[in-house]
Amino acid sequence: MKMSLKAVSCIVLVNLLLASFTFGDSRHELNFPDILDYKTFKCDFHMHTVFSDGQVWPTVRVDEAWRGGLDVIAISDHIEYSPHKQEIPINHNRPYEIAASRAKEKNILLIKGAEITRAIPPGHFNAIFLKDIAPLDTNDFTDNDLKDAAKLVNAVKSANEQGGFVFWNHPGGFADWHPVTNGWLDVHTKLYENKLLHGIEVANGDTYYPDAHRWCLEKNLTMMGGSDMHDPFSNSENLNANHRTITLVFAKEKSMEAVKEALREGRTAVWCGTQLIGREKYLDAIFKASIKVAKPHYRQNDQLWCEIRNNSCVDIQMEKTGTDKVEKLILPANSTTLLKTTAKDDAGQIKLSYVVKNFLIAPDKGLPVKLTIHLQ
Amino acid sequence: MKMSLKAVSCIVLVNLLLASFTFGDSRHELNFPDILDYKTFKCDFHMHTVFSDGQVWPTVRVDEAWRGGLDVIAISDHIEYSPHKQEIPINHNRPYEIAASRAKEKNILLIKGAEITRAIPPGHFNAIFLKDIAPLDTNDFTDNDLKDAAKLVNAVKSANEQGGFVFWNHPGGFADWHPVTNGWLDVHTKLYENKLLHGIEVANGDTYYPDAHRWCLEKNLTMMGGSDMHDPFSNSENLNANHRTITLVFAKEKSMEAVKEALREGRTAVWCGTQLIGREKYLDAIFKASIKVAKPHYRQNDQLWCEIRNNSCVDIQMEKTGTDKVEKLILPANSTTLLKTTAKDDAGQIKLSYVVKNFLIAPDKGLPVKLTIHLQ
Amino acid sequence: MKMSLKAVSCIVLVNLLLASFTFGDSRHELNFPDILDYKTFKCDFHMHTVFSDGQVWPTVRVDEAWRGGLDVIAISDHIEYSPHKQEIPINHNRPYEIAASRAKEKNILLIKGAEITRAIPPGHFNAIFLKDIAPLDTNDFTDNDLKDAAKLVNAVKSANEQGGFVFWNHPGGFADWHPVTNGWLDVHTKLYENKLLHGIEVANGDTYYPDAHRWCLEKNLTMMGGSDMHDPFSNSENLNANHRTITLVFAKEKSMEAVKEALREGRTAVWCGTQLIGREKYLDAIFKASIKVAKPHYRQNDQLWCEIRNNSCVDIQMEKTGTDKVEKLILPANSTTLLKTTAKDDAGQIKLSYVVKNFLIAPDKGLPVKLTIHLQ
Amino acid sequence: MKMSLKAVSCIVLVNLLLASFTFGDSRHELNFPDILDYKTFKCDFHMHTVFSDGQVWPTVRVDEAWRGGLDVIAISDHIEYSPHKQEIPINHNRPYEIAASRAKEKNILLIKGAEITRAIPPGHFNAIFLKDIAPLDTNDFTDNDLKDAAKLVNAVKSANEQGGFVFWNHPGGFADWHPVTNGWLDVHTKLYENKLLHGIEVANGDTYYPDAHRWCLEKNLTMMGGSDMHDPFSNSENLNANHRTITLVFAKEKSMEAVKEALREGRTAVWCGTQLIGREKYLDAIFKASIKVAKPHYRQNDQLWCEIRNNSCVDIQMEKTGTDKVEKLILPANSTTLLKTTAKDDAGQIKLSYVVKNFLIAPDKGLPVKLTIHLQ
Repeated sequence: MKMSLKAVSCIVLVNLLLASFTFGDSRHELNFPDILDYKTFKCDFHMHTVFSDGQVWPTVRVDEAWRGGLDVIAISDHIEYSPHKQEIPINHNRPYEIAASRAKEKNILLIKGAEITRAIPPGHFNAIFLKDIAPLDTNDFTDNDLKDAAKLVNAVKSANEQGGFVFWNHPGGFADWHPVTNGWLDVHTKLYENKLLHGIEVANGDTYYPDAHRWCLEKNLTMMGGSDMHDPFSNSENLNANHRTITLVFAKEKSMEAVKEALREGRTAVWCGTQLIGREKYLDAIFKASIKVAKPHYRQNDQLWCEIRNNSCVDIQMEKTGTDKVEKLILPANSTTLLKTTAKDDAGQIKLSYVVKNFLIAPDKGLPVKLTIHLQ
Repeated sequence: MKMSLKAVSCIVLVNLLLASFTFGDSRHELNFPDILDYKTFKCDFHMHTVFSDGQVWPTVRVDEAWRGGLDVIAISDHIEYSPHKQEIPINHNRPYEIAASRAKEKNILLIKGAEITRAIPPGHFNAIFLKDIAPLDTNDFTDNDLKDAAKLVNAVKSANEQGGFVFWNHPGGFADWHPVTNGWLDVHTKLYENKLLHGIEVANGDTYYPDAHRWCLEKNLTMMGGSDMHDPFSNSENLNANHRTITLVFAKEKSMEAVKEALREGRTAVWCGTQLIGREKYLDAIFKASIKVAKPHYRQNDQLWCEIRNNSCVDIQMEKTGTDKVEKLILPANSTTLLKTTAKDDAGQIKLSYVVKNFLIAPDKGLPVKLTIHLQ
Repeated sequence: MKMSLKAVSCIVLVNLLLASFTFGDSRHELNFPDILDYKTFKCDFHMHTVFSDGQVWPTVRVDEAWRGGLDVIAISDHIEYSPHKQEIPINHNRPYEIAASRAKEKNILLIKGAEITRAIPPGHFNAIFLKDIAPLDTNDFTDNDLKDAAKLVNAVKSANEQGGFVFWNHPGGFADWHPVTNGWLDVHTKLYENKLLHGIEVANGDTYYPDAHRWCLEKNLTMMGGSDMHDPFSNSENLNANHRTITLVFAKEKSMEAVKEALREGRTAVWCGTQLIGREKYLDAIFKASIKVAKPHYRQNDQLWCEIRNNSCVDIQMEKTGTDKVEKLILPANSTTLLKTTAKDDAGQIKLSYVVKNFLIAPDKGLPVKLTIHLQ
Repeated sequence: MKMSLKAVSCIVLVNLLLASFTFGDSRHELNFPDILDYKTFKCDFHMHTVFSDGQVWPTVRVDEAWRGGLDVIAISDHIEYSPHKQEIPINHNRPYEIAASRAKEKNILLIKGAEITRAIPPGHFNAIFLKDIAPLDTNDFTDNDLKDAAKLVNAVKSANEQGGFVFWNHPGGFADWHPVTNGWLDVHTKLYENKLLHGIEVANGDTYYPDAHRWCLEKNLTMMGGSDMHDPFSNSENLNANHRTITLVFAKEKSMEAVKEALREGRTAVWCGTQLIGREKYLDAIFKASIKVAKPHYRQNDQLWCEIRNNSCVDIQMEKTGTDKVEKLILPANSTTLLKTTAKDDAGQIKLSYVVKNFLIAPDKGLPVKLTIHLQ
């Protein structure tokens, strides 16, 4: 018996299907583990639209957030800076209103917010969880007294009166065009002592502010990180290499109240570049929940081999401690790494001490960790 | 009080770290769920090295497999075709011996195998789970009687006597240089009826063989898929788009005996291009274990929105059934997709019927599935 | 003599530099050769902004065009469809005015244009090279008589009175939500016979319209192709795989008058997906100017090897003609391909006949070409 | 008249074509300009195969080189280190012989070479342009006297007697497993003074050796750079980010004699990471031939905008000189960059002074350059 056979390229079939299907939007989840009985939410509370000096319609910010794996966002258009006002009459609440139904459809928790914009110093401040942005537009200053602390305080007070959460943005100046001569001034002390200021951006866009990190630790302020995006944002396929700066918020549930409570309690960490910035307690919990050391799959003489799984979306860069020689270990995101080490026969387990160089628990200070290998 | 602030690019810090660290090899897991109380192992039983007509040293095959997320491999160099024999004296067991300790270190289960090579037809046959390859080199034929069935049967018998599992490779001819005039011949019937033949490649490299798929269904043979790689293989960063063809084996554990038992029982599926090829029972289980339909997060009038998570590494391409209009839904691999549909208020749940076009349960026949959305 | 040596990773140095540098925008040129004594300009005359139903500020369209290697664009917001009019009072000329100075800075030739929007059928029509868009807003119809030809003609006439160039957009319906029941109707005949209609989109977004291609050939209308983008557009790193649909215009120089003259004379081709669509004369010239066949670098017996360079940004997919067996040859974009063929010793040159399958000179008709290999 | 229209996705057509075509190998050219009346050849004289401690068959090295845009290679297997000798009996000339015909087919100039391997120090030395490798296998040492200079000199002399070109490899130790305590020793002086040593690797793999760079400048030795690859190498799609380290050779033509002459005269530069390392004369010529500053396309008040094209495959990273403030300019590879600067009205041209930070003319010393903008 003979017959004619068909040999079909899988690629033909596949492409026919793909071609007639329309790839809808899809969402690439960012893997961060839940910790300490809280859920871990991926949040960005700093971004702009055409309603201030941004370049996109408010719904675009929701679409970008959903595709990029975020859970919570605030659009924070400048209150006092409206370069498109000739075309778009000022109405501070419109960006939120326009984006709200898209956010519901896409399961993004949208927080109403705005950026209080003064000279630098004293700087810019985001106010979120607002009910109405209009009262923050105090309009009680001219260009000449932009630095007048009182006139900043009025707007911040207004935000607080609504129950708003206020944080200081890019507190070291930013880009090349702002002098980095400012710092913690009297006006910041005034805001802080009156409990009007609740957090500081330790990272904005690609920039990390070690001083802000230190201030948050010293003064018990909440560490924030935001993209501050103005242009359209396209998620790269390699999300780890090219993600936006976000705030991880450890909250009881995905609700406005729960996120606000978490921010007020300082339960955050910030992901900027490949660094994770935060308090030791939270970074340690993230490390432990992300890493799984398997039992050794092979032993030969006094050597053993085991696999370490990094389930998070952060490349973890570790350096061994207590040795003379520098010994490094990288655990790439969402990957398995092979560890070869020396085993003493009688030990029930081996403990290896490392510092995670890119988990910053203070400026220039990585997170100390242990990897435990169970031999039986 | 004034101070000079430091603004540090996260990218600087990060790169310094990366630069001084050495990225070791890392393994990118292929996400396929375990099903039906079995573990799902990613396997490739067909590849070559410099010991026949391949281009790499045997250990390279282990390294590639580990990086690419495989669990089990067989190196299957040709027994009768040794173009490098002038430089490398023939020793059929050497590729396995050389790769064995690397496989142990890398947690890859290495199966001893070889490719019995005759004219096409009758074709090539892989024999795996061998103890010794040498006896298969029957050497009882000349070029003139390559098609002599008896002389093929001797080698296959020898493999069976060792407890080997034998499958027919690329059974429709392959590439452009082999006439596709062959098919199921008397010699195949003889092998089959004597239980000497246990499986057929339904896919080899990029090519899918619908006839082989049908034969496996009709004759209860095991569906196999292999890369048949000769050149070095580099995993693309986009693993889904550019993976090697593999056999999924549903086995009790990661051991030679368990994998062999699964193959003998036909518990496999084949991933070629973006198609998954197999029996309905297994593809249905993979679909169900891969897909998670969340409760609707938003309802408005008679519309609802819910998220569907595809946890597998296969893009799932579905088409709605029972409607006049063609309605498609793609669930990209390792991603979340938004579904918007109409809800009847009184229903406790909604069931939507689809056919998964790229899960082939027979030639030209996709897998029928239902998506269930729970409203309460 | 001994000294301590430094071994420095190039990657450290490099990253330090990159980190402190800011990568500005850069432009990725699209390689298409100049032909027939004309310059080849990369143009997109169909795109939207927040001023109609687009999602970005007009300047974004200039930035995207520059980065993506375009030379000429028209923003073509809908005249009659303004979903954002509550926030942005209607002013049809504003998108052009806003984008104009950015276009000058970025060396993009910006053409004033708009989309005349009616029911489908009769369809949408782009008018470009306008002086003032306001008169096209004839406003002489209600929803009930959207299909009234007269009322379409008035707007098109107004465009023509300004010297505008008018083309019919996506003439086969588009997406899934428009019935594809329309075609060439009396109103199109009327526009055509009165010389009010000058071109048709043979491609819009990812869709190619064979009927439009045929109409252009039969009626001597200009072949147009446009992205019709509404959302932000991000150039993929792999430009060839993921480019926007563009019109190649063969014009004397980069000026409004020259581009208009070229469009009126029909000197265009359209790049959609990996297809180039146009008249034989232009596609043939592009092929010849893109391909360079080197002299054979090696001859052995009756075989020769030579390199073929494809300097264009289009993958060229050819099929040999005059042979029984299908023989294919792909020349990837911006790459060199190796050709091995048979040489008769006495020949001064070899001519190989192919058809370029993805250079469409008519629906379903590829461009016939010859590859000439000079032996001496 | 009505008709049913077809709307065809370009992607369908395209994929059908692609699927039935087989993409052959293609070559991605590396853009480096010819300079100073020489041709610029992309060369790698340092790589391994299964014939020493490499992992691939010799032909693979030719295929990789062709795909990656190289012109000239030498396979340089270790003479004294043959870990596969149990399977592959030693025959030092075989890698060359096996790869030779593939090299002819692929238009790669293949140079016969080998690596003379001693302890570190004194280190490893590549000898290329050999006629016969066997005589270099002097075999006049045991493990105990690996450091015996005399026994190194014998092998190097043998290479020189054949007209070989000899260079010192990775002269700062390499990887973590070799102590970096060596340096320029008496044996190197001896080789140098007897004109037996002609070059040094200033870069090997990812590592740059500033001391080697300095020695080459001081002693007029040829700067070499090589990949030293052992594993299979896959060109990334992003060639600039992930290229192998190569030597640029500025030679009269693509012939063994011309390349040898260029090496003897020191006409080279080395591309490692994103750094170009070499003598000022050559780097300056490459810069000038790579960069094209267009006339300003727009002037407004005292500002002007012009485009700068970088036709090379190296990202050029420049820093302005003679200003207080750090001002950077990056010209990405194969791209166009926009420059905005201040123009004095009466000037016929503007000259801007920069240093190219990643064109190293000495350790820690970038190339000084000028950008000239012609105003008329």
